Amino acid sequence: MIKHGLQIFACNASRELAGDISQRLGLRPGALDISRFSNDNLRVQVRENVRERDVFVVQSFTEPVSEHIMELLITLDALRSASAQRITAVIPYYSYARSDKKDAPRISITGRLIADLLHTAGADRVLTMDLHADQVHGFFSVPVDHLTAVSIIAEHFRNRHDLAQMVAVATDAGGAKRAGRFSEALGIPLAIIDKRRVSDTAVKQGHVVGEVAGRDAVIFEDEIATGGTLLSSIATLHAAGARSIHAAATHGVLCGPAIERLREAALDSIVVTNTVHLPAEKRLDKLTVLDVAPLFAAAIERIHSGQSVGALFE
Amino acid sequence: MIKHGLQIFACNASRELAGDISQRLGLRPGALDISRFSNDNLRVQVRENVRERDVFVVQSFTEPVSEHIMELLITLDALRSASAQRITAVIPYYSYARSDKKDAPRISITGRLIADLLHTAGADRVLTMDLHADQVHGFFSVPVDHLTAVSIIAEHFRNRHDLAQMVAVATDAGGAKRAGRFSEALGIPLAIIDKRRVSDTAVKQGHVVGEVAGRDAVIFEDEIATGGTLLSSIATLHAAGARSIHAAATHGVLCGPAIERLREAALDSIVVTNTVHLPAEKRLDKLTVLDVAPLFAAAIERIHSGQSVGALFE
Amino acid sequence: MIKHGLQIFACNASRELAGDISQRLGLRPGALDISRFSNDNLRVQVRENVRERDVFVVQSFTEPVSEHIMELLITLDALRSASAQRITAVIPYYSYARSDKKDAPRISITGRLIADLLHTAGADRVLTMDLHADQVHGFFSVPVDHLTAVSIIAEHFRNRHDLAQMVAVATDAGGAKRAGRFSEALGIPLAIIDKRRVSDTAVKQGHVVGEVAGRDAVIFEDEIATGGTLLSSIATLHAAGARSIHAAATHGVLCGPAIERLREAALDSIVVTNTVHLPAEKRLDKLTVLDVAPLFAAAIERIHSGQSVGALFE
Amino acid sequence: MIKHGLQIFACNASRELAGDISQRLGLRPGALDISRFSNDNLRVQVRENVRERDVFVVQSFTEPVSEHIMELLITLDALRSASAQRITAVIPYYSYARSDKKDAPRISITGRLIADLLHTAGADRVLTMDLHADQVHGFFSVPVDHLTAVSIIAEHFRNRHDLAQMVAVATDAGGAKRAGRFSEALGIPLAIIDKRRVSDTAVKQGHVVGEVAGRDAVIFEDEIATGGTLLSSIATLHAAGARSIHAAATHGVLCGPAIERLREAALDSIVVTNTVHLPAEKRLDKLTVLDVAPLFAAAIERIHSGQSVGALFE
Amino acid sequence: MIKHGLQIFACNASRELAGDISQRLGLRPGALDISRFSNDNLRVQVRENVRERDVFVVQSFTEPVSEHIMELLITLDALRSASAQRITAVIPYYSYARSDKKDAPRISITGRLIADLLHTAGADRVLTMDLHADQVHGFFSVPVDHLTAVSIIAEHFRNRHDLAQMVAVATDAGGAKRAGRFSEALGIPLAIIDKRRVSDTAVKQGHVVGEVAGRDAVIFEDEIATGGTLLSSIATLHAAGARSIHAAATHGVLCGPAIERLREAALDSIVVTNTVHLPAEKRLDKLTVLDVAPLFAAAIERIHSGQSVGALFE
Amino acid sequence: MIKHGLQIFACNASRELAGDISQRLGLRPGALDISRFSNDNLRVQVRENVRERDVFVVQSFTEPVSEHIMELLITLDALRSASAQRITAVIPYYSYARSDKKDAPRISITGRLIADLLHTAGADRVLTMDLHADQVHGFFSVPVDHLTAVSIIAEHFRNRHDLAQMVAVATDAGGAKRAGRFSEALGIPLAIIDKRRVSDTAVKQGHVVGEVAGRDAVIFEDEIATGGTLLSSIATLHAAGARSIHAAATHGVLCGPAIERLREAALDSIVVTNTVHLPAEKRLDKLTVLDVAPLFAAAIERIHSGQSVGALFE
Repeated sequence: MIKHGLQIFACNASRELAGDISQRLGLRPGALDISRFSNDNLRVQVRENVRERDVFVVQSFTEPVSEHIMELLITLDALRSASAQRITAVIPYYSYARSDKKDAPRISITGRLIADLLHTAGADRVLTMDLHADQVHGFFSVPVDHLTAVSIIAEHFRNRHDLAQMVAVATDAGGAKRAGRFSEALGIPLAIIDKRRVSDTAVKQGHVVGEVAGRDAVIFEDEIATGGTLLSSIATLHAAGARSIHAAATHGVLCGPAIERLREAALDSIVVTNTVHLPAEKRLDKLTVLDVAPLFAAAIERIHSGQSVGALFE
Repeated sequence: MIKHGLQIFACNASRELAGDISQRLGLRPGALDISRFSNDNLRVQVRENVRERDVFVVQSFTEPVSEHIMELLITLDALRSASAQRITAVIPYYSYARSDKKDAPRISITGRLIADLLHTAGADRVLTMDLHADQVHGFFSVPVDHLTAVSIIAEHFRNRHDLAQMVAVATDAGGAKRAGRFSEALGIPLAIIDKRRVSDTAVKQGHVVGEVAGRDAVIFEDEIATGGTLLSSIATLHAAGARSIHAAATHGVLCGPAIERLREAALDSIVVTNTVHLPAEKRLDKLTVLDVAPLFAAAIERIHSGQSVGALFE
Repeated sequence: MIKHGLQIFACNASRELAGDISQRLGLRPGALDISRFSNDNLRVQVRENVRERDVFVVQSFTEPVSEHIMELLITLDALRSASAQRITAVIPYYSYARSDKKDAPRISITGRLIADLLHTAGADRVLTMDLHADQVHGFFSVPVDHLTAVSIIAEHFRNRHDLAQMVAVATDAGGAKRAGRFSEALGIPLAIIDKRRVSDTAVKQGHVVGEVAGRDAVIFEDEIATGGTLLSSIATLHAAGARSIHAAATHGVLCGPAIERLREAALDSIVVTNTVHLPAEKRLDKLTVLDVAPLFAAAIERIHSGQSVGALFE
Repeated sequence: MIKHGLQIFACNASRELAGDISQRLGLRPGALDISRFSNDNLRVQVRENVRERDVFVVQSFTEPVSEHIMELLITLDALRSASAQRITAVIPYYSYARSDKKDAPRISITGRLIADLLHTAGADRVLTMDLHADQVHGFFSVPVDHLTAVSIIAEHFRNRHDLAQMVAVATDAGGAKRAGRFSEALGIPLAIIDKRRVSDTAVKQGHVVGEVAGRDAVIFEDEIATGGTLLSSIATLHAAGARSIHAAATHGVLCGPAIERLREAALDSIVVTNTVHLPAEKRLDKLTVLDVAPLFAAAIERIHSGQSVGALFE
Repeated sequence: MIKHGLQIFACNASRELAGDISQRLGLRPGALDISRFSNDNLRVQVRENVRERDVFVVQSFTEPVSEHIMELLITLDALRSASAQRITAVIPYYSYARSDKKDAPRISITGRLIADLLHTAGADRVLTMDLHADQVHGFFSVPVDHLTAVSIIAEHFRNRHDLAQMVAVATDAGGAKRAGRFSEALGIPLAIIDKRRVSDTAVKQGHVVGEVAGRDAVIFEDEIATGGTLLSSIATLHAAGARSIHAAATHGVLCGPAIERLREAALDSIVVTNTVHLPAEKRLDKLTVLDVAPLFAAAIERIHSGQSVGALFE
Repeated sequence: MIKHGLQIFACNASRELAGDISQRLGLRPGALDISRFSNDNLRVQVRENVRERDVFVVQSFTEPVSEHIMELLITLDALRSASAQRITAVIPYYSYARSDKKDAPRISITGRLIADLLHTAGADRVLTMDLHADQVHGFFSVPVDHLTAVSIIAEHFRNRHDLAQMVAVATDAGGAKRAGRFSEALGIPLAIIDKRRVSDTAVKQGHVVGEVAGRDAVIFEDEIATGGTLLSSIATLHAAGARSIHAAATHGVLCGPAIERLREAALDSIVVTNTVHLPAEKRLDKLTVLDVAPLFAAAIERIHSGQSVGALFE
C-alpha cells in the first residue's frame, strides 16, 4: 500500500545528508524548527501538517551526542502527537551501538537503552547503517532496516587499487568478523592485530596474526573517532612490514585530534562515508568521502512503497 | 519496612547538593564514574555493589541540559541492571516542567516525554521540587514526592523584612496561582502583571493588576533563567510606583546574561535556593542562596523508612 | 490517506450533540445499544459492522459521571474487539480535568488515571474541549486534539455587548490565565478575585485585584457546576462596584441547585455551550447556549482526512 | 517474608464486611474519605500513611455498579501514588464476571476489560470469590486468589437438612458444572433445567433433565439478582414434581423486585452469603445469610504472611 | 479499506489446510522455510517480500505441540520484523484452550499464557475455531474471530440421520453448555453424563442425567484426543440403554491409541473436521472428516476486506 | 536484604545440575510436576508453597529445545501466579543466543524473541553462562547475570598441559573475540581459521591465519553441537601442521552424530562443562566434563543475599 504523503525531516546533525536524500526523492525536507529556551531546554516545532503522513527523521548521533539524541527524541514526540501515521527514525550513525555489552561490572548497555528510548519517544521503525555489531539489531523492539556501506567501500577499492597484494586488517579480534566481510567482498586475505596485556601493569601491545609483510594493508573499521586505535595499528603494521597502509570505515566521526593525527599519519589513503557530516575545514587530500545518500534514498522509497529493502543488496 | 542499604549517588550537575544531603544522612555519596568515549558517547559505571539497595540518584536539569538528562538516564539504566532494589530519581530542578502544554501547534509536551523516558530508563520513583505547574506531577507514571521551597523562602522574608507594606507579584497571569500561594504564606496581598499585545505587531506591554504604589514588591517565580522577564517586570513595577523591589524564586538557573543583569538591576534583594548549583564566581552581594539539602535529606529518609513525606509540610 | 468509512457513535450523555455533529457531516450516528443486566452491569452492543472503519464515539462526562465513564470505556472495548481501524474518544466535557494535581496528601490525580483507563479500554486518540488546565493535555499517552470555545464565546460578546467598559474576571488566581486569554481575545482588561483565609478558622473571603468599579464584569470560567463559586464572586463584584455582571463558561454543567441559583442571582446574562446537554426544563431566559457542533464536526472531518486541526483556530 | 504493616481499607459497597474482616485480624479499617465534587466527580483521600504498607481494599461490585467500580479504581490509584508497597483489590462479588464471552456480535467481554482497568489503576493482586465461570480467573494479568463459598453453603445444608432425597439443580446447561460441584460436596444427585426455544418466536421453555419428582430440590447458582431466573426455575421444578424447593447462591445481589419475588415465591428456604451487603429492610424469614468474613480474613492473613491460601480448602 | 496484498502462510502443522484455504481465495501459500540448526534450534525464513502486506499464518497446535507453538511464535516474529502490515495468527485448533482454569493449586492457566506469548511474538489478531470454553476468547488482548463448526456438524447429522429419537450427550457437566448448543441446533433433547467419585479412593463412575434409553445418542465434544473419555461414555450410554451411539467433535486430535480404540469401539459413526490434519493411515470407514476450509477462507476474506465475520453465522 | 525462602526448581533438561546446585546450597530442589495431557499439552504443577519466596528455576535449552522452552515458560507462569516474590530463570545453556542477528533476509532474531517470551511468562531475572555473543546480554529487558566458564576451562589446561607451544584457535572470524579471551587467560597466542567461498558455487574452504605449525592447537568454541565445524577445523589444522589438537567449549551439546564423530576424530582431548546434561552412554575417554555447579551455586547465593556476582570473577 503506497502510504499517503512521504515526508522527510532533518535534525541538526544531518541537515546536509537529509537534503541530499530528499532531493533524490524529488522532495524538499519538511520544515522543522529547533530552538532553545533561556534555561537551555530544547524546543522543537514541526512547521507543517504531518497528519496521516509517512514521516522519516534523519539524525546521526554525532558530537554533541547527548544534544543530538535529545533533539531526535523530542522531534519524534512532536511528530507522534501531531498525528503522523508512521515515524521512522533514520540514524545513519548510531554511536551507542559501541555500548553493546557488559565489559565491566555495573555499566549500562546503552545501545539497548537508546533503542528503548527511541521507542518510548515514538519511533515506529529505525533505518540505520553499519551498526558496530550485527547483534545490536536485536536491541530494537521496532522493525529495523540495517544498511551497509561495505559494498560501496569495496567498490571504491576495486576501482582505484590493484587488489593482488592487498590484505584486509582488523584492529582487534572483535573486529575480525567485520574485516572478514570486507576481505570476502574483495576476495583478499584477512589479518588481525592481536592486542594483549604483556604483564599486569604494562599496556597492551599488538602483533599481527596473518601475513602483511610486503603487502598493501587496508585497516577496515566501522568508525574512526579520534584515530587513536588507527595510529597504534599503523605502527604495528609498519613493524610487520606492510608496504602501504590504507584505512577505511563507514563512519568518519573524526573528532578531537583526529584530523591532525590523520594528516600526519603514515597512511596512503583514508576512506569514509558521509553518515557523519564532515565540515569543509576537516577535509584532507588523502581523505575520500563516499556518498550514502543514494542508498538511503532508495531504502526510504522502498520502505514507503512496501518493496523489499534487502533486494538493494542482492 | 526499612529497606536494606540506603545509597545516594550524584551525577555531575548536583555533586555538591548530593554531598550535603548525604552528609546530613550520615552517608558518603556512592562511587559513580561518568566518563566519555572518544566518539562523545557517555559511559557511566557504578563503582560499588548496589544489589538489593534502596538507591537515590541526584541530578538537576541544568546547563548543559541534554547532557545532564542523558547522564541521569544512563545512570538509572546502569543501576537497574546492577540489580538495585528500588531507584529514585532525585531531580531538584526539573527544567522541562516548563514544557507542559501545547501553546503552539505540533510541539512536544516535553515535560511528559522526559517523565516517560525516566520510567523507561529505570526510575521507580521521582523526588523533585517546585515543578513549574502543579499539574506536571500528573505527567509521571511512577510515584512522585513533590517538595516545595515556598515555606523556606517565606520564612526568609518573615525573618528579614517588615511585611506590613509588602505585596507578592506574579509576572503574568499564569503565575498568579504560585504567587498567590506565597502571598498566603506571608499574609500579604497579591498583584499580577498583565501582559498583552497592544496591536498585532507591537510587543507585549505589562501593566499591574492590583496595588503596588508605595509598597515593597516581591516578584515571586519558580525560576530565574536569563532574567529577561524579571527586568521587564521591574520596569513595570517601578512605573507603578513600588518603593522597593525584591525577587524570589526556587530555582536560580541564572544562565547567560543573568548575573550581569541582576547586578545592575534595580533590585533590593534576590533570593533563590541551591536546587541549581551556583559557582562561586556567580555570587552577588544582594543574592541569598537558601539551602534545601535539609529538606531533601528529610524526605529521602522518610521515603526510605516508610514515613509520611507530606508530614514535613504540616 | 482518506480512511475508509467514517462512523460516529454516541453514548448516552451526548446523543443530541452527536446527532448534530453527524448531521453536519452528512451521516447518521451509528447504531449502539446500551442496556443494563439485572445485576446493574452495563451491556453495550455495536449494532453495525465497524471493521476497518475510522470511528468516533461522543460522550461528555456529565452526571452520573461514573456511569457515563463506564459506558464509554465499555463502548471503546466493544469497538476495538469488533476490529475498528481507529477509535477516537470525543469527550466534549472531560470533568476529571479538574482533578489535575495533588492539592491534598494521598489523593489521586484522577485526570491522569482516566486518561490511562481510556487508553487501556481502546482509545487511539482523544478529541476534547477546554480542559480545566492546559497541562491536562499532557496526561494522555495518545494524541489529543484540544479545541477551545473561547473564540465562540468572545464572538458572542463582541456581537451583543459594548466592550468599552467591559472587564474579564477570574474567580481565583488559578483561573487568571484562562480569563486572561478571554480578555485578550476581546481586548479588554483583566481582574482577579483573590480569595484567602482571614484566620485559621474563618472561611475564605474574596477581594478584587484590578479595576471593576463602574464596569461591566464578565466572570469567565471553564465550567459552572452548582454555581456556588459564581454566587460568591457576584457578591464580591457587587461590593467592588461593578455596574453589570455577566457569566460565561464553556461547560454548563448546571447541576444540583445551579438553575435555581442562576435564576435568582444578580446576573445580567449567562453564556455556556452545549458540550453538556441541557434539558429543556433547565433553560432560563438569561441563559444563552452556544453551539459547538460545527466546531466538532469540522475537527472530526479534518482528523479523518488528515488535514490540520490547528488551522481551524488560525 | 512478613511484610510490614498490613492495612485494610473499605470502599462504600463493603464497609460492613471490611469491618468484620478487620476485626478478625485485630485491626481497624484504614481511614478513607470518599466524597463528591459539585460536578459529580468522585474524590478519594487516604487519611493515613500507607508507605511501604501491604494494603487490601475491599469493594464488591454492587448497585450502583459503575459508581462502585470507579470508587475502587480511584482508591487504587490514590494508594499507589501514596507509595503503598503492595495493593490487593479484594472484590468479594465481581459482578462483571458474568460478561465473560461473546454471546452476541460486537459486544465487550467486560469481565476482561475490568480486569485490565484494575491493573492500570494499580492493583497488584486480586482476591475474589466464586467468579461466575472458573475461566474468568484467566482474565487477570495479576495473581488472583479465588475463594469459594461452596463448602460453607454445603455445610449449612448438611447441618440443617436431610440429604437423602435432596437433588442439586442447575438453572441451565451453563450452570451444570457449578451445581455439579455442589452436588458432589453433598454427595447428592444432579439435575439440570434445559431451556430452549420451542419455535422461532416463542420464548424459551424449561424442562428438567434428571430426577426431581418427590425430591427436595436445591437450586444452586452463583448469584441471585432480580430473581427472574429463579421464579421460572421454581415453576419448572414444581411442574416436575419436586416436593420442596430451596435456593442457594454465593452472591445475594437481590436487587429490583427480588425481595418481593422471593417473599412470595414457593421456596422453602434461601441461602446466600454476605459478599453483597444486605440492608436490614431486605431481610426475610426464610432467607439465611452466611458469613464469609472469617474466610476472607484467613486468606488475607495468609497472603500477607506468605502462607498457602489453597491450604484453606484442603 | 481493502488492504494491499493478502498473503497466507502455513507452518508445518497445517500445510494441507492452508493450501485448501489459499486455493479457495485464488492464492498460493507464501513461501516459508522452517528448518533446524544442528543444536535443535528452529530457523524460520520468510521467502518473499511481506512489507505492508496483510498476512495470515495457519498453524494448529497438534502433536508435537511445543514444537508447533514455537514454529508459530518464531514465524510471527520473522513476519513482524519483515514489516508485514498486519499479522493474523490462524489457529484452527488451539489445544491449550483446555488449560483454562485453576483446577489444582499452583498450576498455570496456560491458555492465557499462550495468548500473551502470541501477542509478544507479533500477532495482531487471532482467528480460531471452537475454543474449549467460550471464555477463552477473553484471554486474548488482541481481537479474535471465533468460528464454530457446530452448524457444519449439525448439518451433517440433519442430512444423514433421522433426528426423531436422537439425543445430544455431554460427557460431563462442564460440557453441558456445548452439547446444549448442538442439541438446540438440531432441535433434539440433551443428556449429561454425571461423573463423580463414589468414595475417596474409588475412581469416578458415570451415570446419565436425562433420557437415553432406546434412543440414538450423539456424544458431542470439542475434541477427541486419545478417546479415553469417549470409551467410558460409550459404556455408560450402553448401560443406560442407548440403541445407537455416535460421536462428534470439531477437533479430531486422535492421538496415541485413539484410532485403535475408535476402530474397536461400539460406535456407529464418528464425525470430526479437518482443523487437525489426519494422515491417510488414520482414516477409518466409520469416520467422516468435514471440511472447514471454506469457512476459514470466507472469514479471512471478510477480515481482509473489512466485512462482518459474524454475518457468516446468521 | 536477605529475601525470605530461597527455593530452587528444576525443569526436565537440568534435573541433575539443579540437584548439584541445591546440594551445595544445603537445599533440596522444590517439588515440581511436569506431565502431559492426552492432547500433548504440557501441565506443570508446583507442589509446594512459593508465596513470597525467592525462586530460581534451572533449565538448559537442550534437545528437544522447543519442549524445554515451553516447559520453562509454563513453569515461570505457574510460579508467578502462585505469588513467588521473585523468579530467576537459570538457563545454563541458552541455545538461541546463536540466533542473534539477521544474516539472511526476513528471519527472526530468535535470541531476542525468547528473551521477550521469558519476560512475558514471568521471569524477573536471568542467570546464564557464556552466551554465544556478549551482545545477547542486551536482548533481555530484565537484569541478567552472565557467568563464564572460560577461567574454569583455562584452569584445566593450565593444570594438565604444557602451555609453551600451545595456541588458541577460533573456528571463524566471528569467534576470534571469544578465542582471544581464552588465549589471554592462558597467555598463549591466537590463530583464526578464515573460511571463505572460493567461487560462487564451491563450498567454503578454511585456511589458518596465524601460526600453528608444530604447535598444540586448542580449538575454543562456545558450543559443540553435531561436531561438523570441529571436524573441518581439525582437517584444516592438520594440514597446517599442528602437532596436537584439542577442543574446548562451554556447552557440550553433542547431539546427532557428535559422539561418533568425536570418538573417531583426530583429537587429543575434548573439554566441555555440564551446562548440558551428558548421559552416561555418551561419555568418551578423551572427553572431560568440568563442573559448573559450584559457580552457579555461588552466583545464586550472592543474588539471593544481595552480594556482588561480579566479585566471583575478580
